[in-house]
Amino acid sequence: MMRAGPSQEEIRKHNLGTLLRHVHLGGPTSRAELTSLMGLNRSTIMALTADLTAAGLVREELPKDTGKAGRPSLVVRPESSRVYVLAFDVGVDRLAAARVGLGGVILDRRVALRQRGSFDMPQVVAILAGFARQMLRKTRPDTICVGAAAAFCGAVRKSDGVVRIGPNIGLEEMPFGEELSGKLALGLPVNVGNDANLGALAEHTRGIGLGCRDLVYLHGDVGIGGGIVVNGQLLGGFAGYGGEVGHMIVNPGGRPCACGSRGCLEAEVGERALMEHAGRGGGEAVGRDGVRSVVDAADRGDVVAQEALHGVGNWLGLGVANLVNIFNPEMVIFGGTLREMYLGSAAQVRSQINTGTLGASREHLRLRTSGLGDDAPLLGAAELAFGKVLADPLDVLSRQTS
Amino acid sequence: MMRAGPSQEEIRKHNLGTLLRHVHLGGPTSRAELTSLMGLNRSTIMALTADLTAAGLVREELPKDTGKAGRPSLVVRPESSRVYVLAFDVGVDRLAAARVGLGGVILDRRVALRQRGSFDMPQVVAILAGFARQMLRKTRPDTICVGAAAAFCGAVRKSDGVVRIGPNIGLEEMPFGEELSGKLALGLPVNVGNDANLGALAEHTRGIGLGCRDLVYLHGDVGIGGGIVVNGQLLGGFAGYGGEVGHMIVNPGGRPCACGSRGCLEAEVGERALMEHAGRGGGEAVGRDGVRSVVDAADRGDVVAQEALHGVGNWLGLGVANLVNIFNPEMVIFGGTLREMYLGSAAQVRSQINTGTLGASREHLRLRTSGLGDDAPLLGAAELAFGKVLADPLDVLSRQTS
Repeated sequence: MMRAGPSQEEIRKHNLGTLLRHVHLGGPTSRAELTSLMGLNRSTIMALTADLTAAGLVREELPKDTGKAGRPSLVVRPESSRVYVLAFDVGVDRLAAARVGLGGVILDRRVALRQRGSFDMPQVVAILAGFARQMLRKTRPDTICVGAAAAFCGAVRKSDGVVRIGPNIGLEEMPFGEELSGKLALGLPVNVGNDANLGALAEHTRGIGLGCRDLVYLHGDVGIGGGIVVNGQLLGGFAGYGGEVGHMIVNPGGRPCACGSRGCLEAEVGERALMEHAGRGGGEAVGRDGVRSVVDAADRGDVVAQEALHGVGNWLGLGVANLVNIFNPEMVIFGGTLREMYLGSAAQVRSQINTGTLGASREHLRLRTSGLGDDAPLLGAAELAFGKVLADPLDVLSRQTS
Repeated sequence: MMRAGPSQEEIRKHNLGTLLRHVHLGGPTSRAELTSLMGLNRSTIMALTADLTAAGLVREELPKDTGKAGRPSLVVRPESSRVYVLAFDVGVDRLAAARVGLGGVILDRRVALRQRGSFDMPQVVAILAGFARQMLRKTRPDTICVGAAAAFCGAVRKSDGVVRIGPNIGLEEMPFGEELSGKLALGLPVNVGNDANLGALAEHTRGIGLGCRDLVYLHGDVGIGGGIVVNGQLLGGFAGYGGEVGHMIVNPGGRPCACGSRGCLEAEVGERALMEHAGRGGGEAVGRDGVRSVVDAADRGDVVAQEALHGVGNWLGLGVANLVNIFNPEMVIFGGTLREMYLGSAAQVRSQINTGTLGASREHLRLRTSGLGDDAPLLGAAELAFGKVLADPLDVLSRQTS
């Protein structure tokens, strides 16, 4: 709620952030377009652009040949190679770190496979901080890091970014962001978010869900996570644990789930269920490769693999149908290993949606696979990390360079 | 997104609306409190109050004995008996209309029972418009109607308020608001919303959910509707059909549902399921009375009634568990006939939640029955109708009195 009228300084800060966000999300944008997008006059846009240019956040240049006669409007582009954030992704069996430039460009990245099993925080923090140091060592002296954030395959408390994880999930507390921040020693906090939530944010911001104000993103790893955008905002819930659609019960009394319940979406549709139905329960390829091998086998006519995929697809479709009734989304996006699973069982998924949802709720629905692939959570973490500089561009910069 | 800085006129309009909203939602409020709530200085609050007083929207008076020495701060209270809206509620077997004063006071009301079965729009519109005329005839000449809205037991399209209803729900289109507005002939549009959505809005605004930014409201009528508040905003979805939790499938292959699917929450938990499980399938009391009679019988030790309630409660609990995992709400509210059903099966509901949700997702959860009872959708419709005067108090008033 707006209280008193904003001061001139607040308006300027807001306008600087808005302009920077436009070029961060939309890429190179002409002054003329910015004038129209922001509803400000040309001289104000010029002044804002000059401030951001002086701060080294954007630069102005002549556009590539426009094919039109006359003097072209200068194009404002983000200083992607100069201004960046550190983004991290802690998956069940993969660790990733990246330097992501303003505008969402991945400038550098490091990936390591992780042994499944118990989570060794000091080890994970050491690996990620090591990756960060390697990447920082390669940067030019005039570059500047304006934030850091991590996507994590667990429930994350909104108030302080603490990861909640444990035998039944939700009991132990792990100050992962604080530990990583300490190890990085850059004087920057590391914000933390759930990986599926951040995947949803990335797909909404610069992926296949661009322009959709209401979408559901389903992320398959070992389990299934969800990130939901409601009216343009990520659904967090009271404490930040919203979107745990993997534990929606779709088959009461069904397969046991790691959470202690039975018949959860992730128990029926997760990687383990698929592998077991396909007769590959023991020791064969797991993760993305395992899922892909079943899809490939089904494509080649392997009846057991086909039936496994179709069975899993029916449960997936039932879960998606429930979410369509609940959210009336414009788009459902399948990410992580669910991309392959969905592609191998799209008919079953669609059929369950057609019988299990209200006509009105599904009439504008689009089903899509992730546009950003495995990078979705990492790019979502980058967006989280860019939050501060977009909210107050000059302040963040003055802190970092002072 | 704020574009240019707001003009003085926009700031004044915003502040007038904010002040009016404070007294509308919070009741009589002292100038001192308003000064602190709105972060404005005392003279600005005085000027805003003077404008609203001149327009007849609020009045200032001395508070009742405060028990403190010294000159008391004047109290600003809404002109509830002068400024009102018309609110309507179209339930499956009940029609209601009310005159609701600023501040959410029901000044007058009319209720009629409706025969179940096919929906006769001209007849329903005629009854509601008749109720409105009866109530308007009794108003004093200096009163003023500033809006009208209706809650409807069906899916409502956000863009134009058209009700979507039909054999499988969602196929036919019914311009209910337009028809009712025409019949009222007051020169006012009638906004329309889904009854459970508006029930959620009312509970969030002035009911048991006051202060909860994330809540799930479940409304039992013949079927089960849902209204969900996410981060303080009602979940609408892409086209406005969000919150149809009654058609979440909790028991795949279970009881047939009116929507054409099987095992939907409303098929397993609705009034019909309870009555049949209790051996009262044919011709006995239906609706609220029927549900209450089963709950009463269970209280008196009737084993069949107890088992029926517990069976239904298990499915209800499973549905709620799913919603808790998905939304991480602070509160789940049981309204309509679900109040009685929940009270008669709270142990089963709680048990399903304890086994079917993540520990983190349920740790702050409160389960409550509706604070507004059968009036929740009606009061939600009133809030919808007050929207315009709260957004621009003086404009709406000048239109109505000119």
